[in-house]
Amino acid sequence: MATTDSRDPRVVRTHNDVPTVALRLLIDEGWEAVTPGRVAEEAGYSRATVYNHWPHRIDLLRDAFALYGKMPHFETSGDAESDLRGEIASFCRAMVEHRLDRALATLAERAQTNPELASIRDAFIADGERPMRQTVLALAEGPEAEAAVQMLCGMVTHSVLMHGQPPTSVVLNTAVDILVRGLTHRD
Amino acid sequence: MATTDSRDPRVVRTHNDVPTVALRLLIDEGWEAVTPGRVAEEAGYSRATVYNHWPHRIDLLRDAFALYGKMPHFETSGDAESDLRGEIASFCRAMVEHRLDRALATLAERAQTNPELASIRDAFIADGERPMRQTVLALAEGPEAEAAVQMLCGMVTHSVLMHGQPPTSVVLNTAVDILVRGLTHRD
Repeated sequence: MATTDSRDPRVVRTHNDVPTVALRLLIDEGWEAVTPGRVAEEAGYSRATVYNHWPHRIDLLRDAFALYGKMPHFETSGDAESDLRGEIASFCRAMVEHRLDRALATLAERAQTNPELASIRDAFIADGERPMRQTVLALAEGPEAEAAVQMLCGMVTHSVLMHGQPPTSVVLNTAVDILVRGLTHRD
Repeated sequence: MATTDSRDPRVVRTHNDVPTVALRLLIDEGWEAVTPGRVAEEAGYSRATVYNHWPHRIDLLRDAFALYGKMPHFETSGDAESDLRGEIASFCRAMVEHRLDRALATLAERAQTNPELASIRDAFIADGERPMRQTVLALAEGPEAEAAVQMLCGMVTHSVLMHGQPPTSVVLNTAVDILVRGLTHRD
């Protein structure tokens, strides 16, 4: 059953529209473009409305990044190996189709010098890694699970941010093959 | 034997000093600080000298990033598994001790919208991955080698940029264990 939101429907609409515009500006024009004034203008709300709900730029950014968490997730099947393949493919699609590459690049750079943004980044990454971690826990635990999550997520982040494109599906599937063999064949 | 540089020693000194200052500014203050004027001031050279050698900011940045390539590398032993451990530990140290995390974060973010910077990034990353790729080729080839390189480098990049710190040595060593098992146990 869908959650019923008892707030004023106009408030609900503002709470959906404004972060959507903030995220689009972040992706299309970069960090500097995400100001309450600019977002108000683009979203068609008064500055007073935007400042009232999001007093600081950081509040806009937090809600903009949170939109990624509301996007449809990969539906797991319960088979760990095929779920890993599905989750990693879904992560790559978000990079390309929803420009998660741009959002992550900005987050990585700005979090280096902005502790508030570092806390948004930490929460965002923890949420993003959660499905992969859950699936990996069916195959491994402790440092093995952590190493597997960091290698799988890392392969995608590194390829996108450092090579400018996600790994090919052959490389992605080969990586899962290697990991599954490495986690199931113990010396 | 050390390479003899036949250029005017003053030119050689300028060519060493200026990129060093540019890299320090990039790390300490970010991308905006790396302008020929500011670098000249900090390095104690005239603006004319800096503009003469590095007409555009991109030239300064290219030479600043190239300094990482001149830093001492991990000395390989020929044993692939222990070389992988050494190279990945060395990569983590560069992230922390030489602030490669900041340099990579800036490169990742700015390369999203600046094609000249994307070409600096591509060359820089290819150089950085080369020792790891050489070592991995002793254990695997083709897509398996590529997947292993992207997982190992990616684990470090992702941890540093997305979690704000490199993986623990337990996680790093566990990752190498998993990879080596995965590459050597074929079903």
